[in-house]
Amino acid sequence: MDRNAPIGIFDSGLGGLTALKAVRETFPNEDLVYFGDTLRVPYGNRSKETIIEYVKDDINILLRYGVKVIVVACNTADSTARAEVSREYDIPIIGVVEPAVKKAVETTKNGKIGVICTVATAASHAYENAIGKLDPSCSVIIEPTPLIVPLIEEGRIHKDDMLMNRVLKEYLIPLGEKGIDTLVLGCTHYPLITENIADILPGINLINSGSAAVEELKKTLAENDLFTDRTEKGTVRYFVSDIPDSFASTASHFIEEDIAGKVKKIEF
Amino acid sequence: MDRNAPIGIFDSGLGGLTALKAVRETFPNEDLVYFGDTLRVPYGNRSKETIIEYVKDDINILLRYGVKVIVVACNTADSTARAEVSREYDIPIIGVVEPAVKKAVETTKNGKIGVICTVATAASHAYENAIGKLDPSCSVIIEPTPLIVPLIEEGRIHKDDMLMNRVLKEYLIPLGEKGIDTLVLGCTHYPLITENIADILPGINLINSGSAAVEELKKTLAENDLFTDRTEKGTVRYFVSDIPDSFASTASHFIEEDIAGKVKKIEF
Repeated sequence: MDRNAPIGIFDSGLGGLTALKAVRETFPNEDLVYFGDTLRVPYGNRSKETIIEYVKDDINILLRYGVKVIVVACNTADSTARAEVSREYDIPIIGVVEPAVKKAVETTKNGKIGVICTVATAASHAYENAIGKLDPSCSVIIEPTPLIVPLIEEGRIHKDDMLMNRVLKEYLIPLGEKGIDTLVLGCTHYPLITENIADILPGINLINSGSAAVEELKKTLAENDLFTDRTEKGTVRYFVSDIPDSFASTASHFIEEDIAGKVKKIEF
Repeated sequence: MDRNAPIGIFDSGLGGLTALKAVRETFPNEDLVYFGDTLRVPYGNRSKETIIEYVKDDINILLRYGVKVIVVACNTADSTARAEVSREYDIPIIGVVEPAVKKAVETTKNGKIGVICTVATAASHAYENAIGKLDPSCSVIIEPTPLIVPLIEEGRIHKDDMLMNRVLKEYLIPLGEKGIDTLVLGCTHYPLITENIADILPGINLINSGSAAVEELKKTLAENDLFTDRTEKGTVRYFVSDIPDSFASTASHFIEEDIAGKVKKIEF
């Protein structure tokens, strides 16, 4: 494998850009290829077999660009399909759930961990299983939060947005009352509302699954001797499966950079 | 064409069931075939070319069951794709936009009509165009309301649901202030929250696009001499493209009937 090949990152839509941003900050010399499956977003309410088919398609798209490693920057795709699908491929395919769980277990003080996520991620039991394997003494409370992604996709992410905050209070106050000291943002969209969450659960230990995955990526690149040896700044290419224009405008929330005109639509 | 062939009805998901219910009440002896494209829902934020492809697929699915007429029970599909697609088929394909517009223009007193709909329906300008053609003296205010469908799909339809009502107030109060006396529910999901809307805009003339289409269907069946001659109660078959179980449970909100076990998943 070519050490100067790009790193591939995919998500069902925009959410994975929070992971892309973290990867870019840590590895500025690596080339990156991002794919957002905006044609078929959202994955979070679909069936397991459908998500598995979609994840295979997503990986095959990134392979067209000769990627050396793939980050599944979507908790739904990771928890529902990655283990099953990744065996079929020769390159390392890393997820976001296990790195987030590792960080949560390491940093919780009272052993009570909350996870907010999509309906499909909750149904996969990936978080309970991973936490149970790593530290069975931890207790886990999973809260499916299906209304957050639509609100984020509508740009309702200001820290004083009344609607977002009302939705979040409904989901989060019961978690706070159960005494969690750590909350995993089990969807790569959620880092955009970190401030809103911290206002509702002050002092909570928040785990960003996208940036937790950067540690796993570093380990994988090291083990496989795949760090680029270039010293100039890496490039980033963006691909989607529908409507590049709206993608670019919403994407600016995620990566704080104007990528209008840089996003290409691909066909499966 | 066989007059005893079924009537086909499709939507991107569940919303079209409000139209199915109205069709069933008016034509109890007709056989009905419903298709909900739950694999690819929602259509409302997708590109025009994607929606056109999806609508062709949806029509082709219904044709497998030998339908004599098709109701496009989805404002997004109708406004974005029906005119272009229906030329390619031999059977009548009727929509929901024109019947709703006809009823709105006939019943408004002050000529100020509001329309709430998806982003794609708003972008199609189908409502402005149809109203302008029918009565250019009417003024039209289109309000895209992208957060309503996710809330309905989550079952937040109780008339006292705080979250739904807050979202609705944001969308509807400005419409009320502009003096509309008639509001078109330009998405077949919205009849489920009629009470919530009527509480925020008391006395408003609400147009249900699904039930308005029943008049158009009656006209089409009459013109083509296609009314069934059977006198026993007709059958209803339900098909979806993903997860029949969740479809059946949410569907009960729409048709007030338990259809668990009756919904079949099809492949494209």
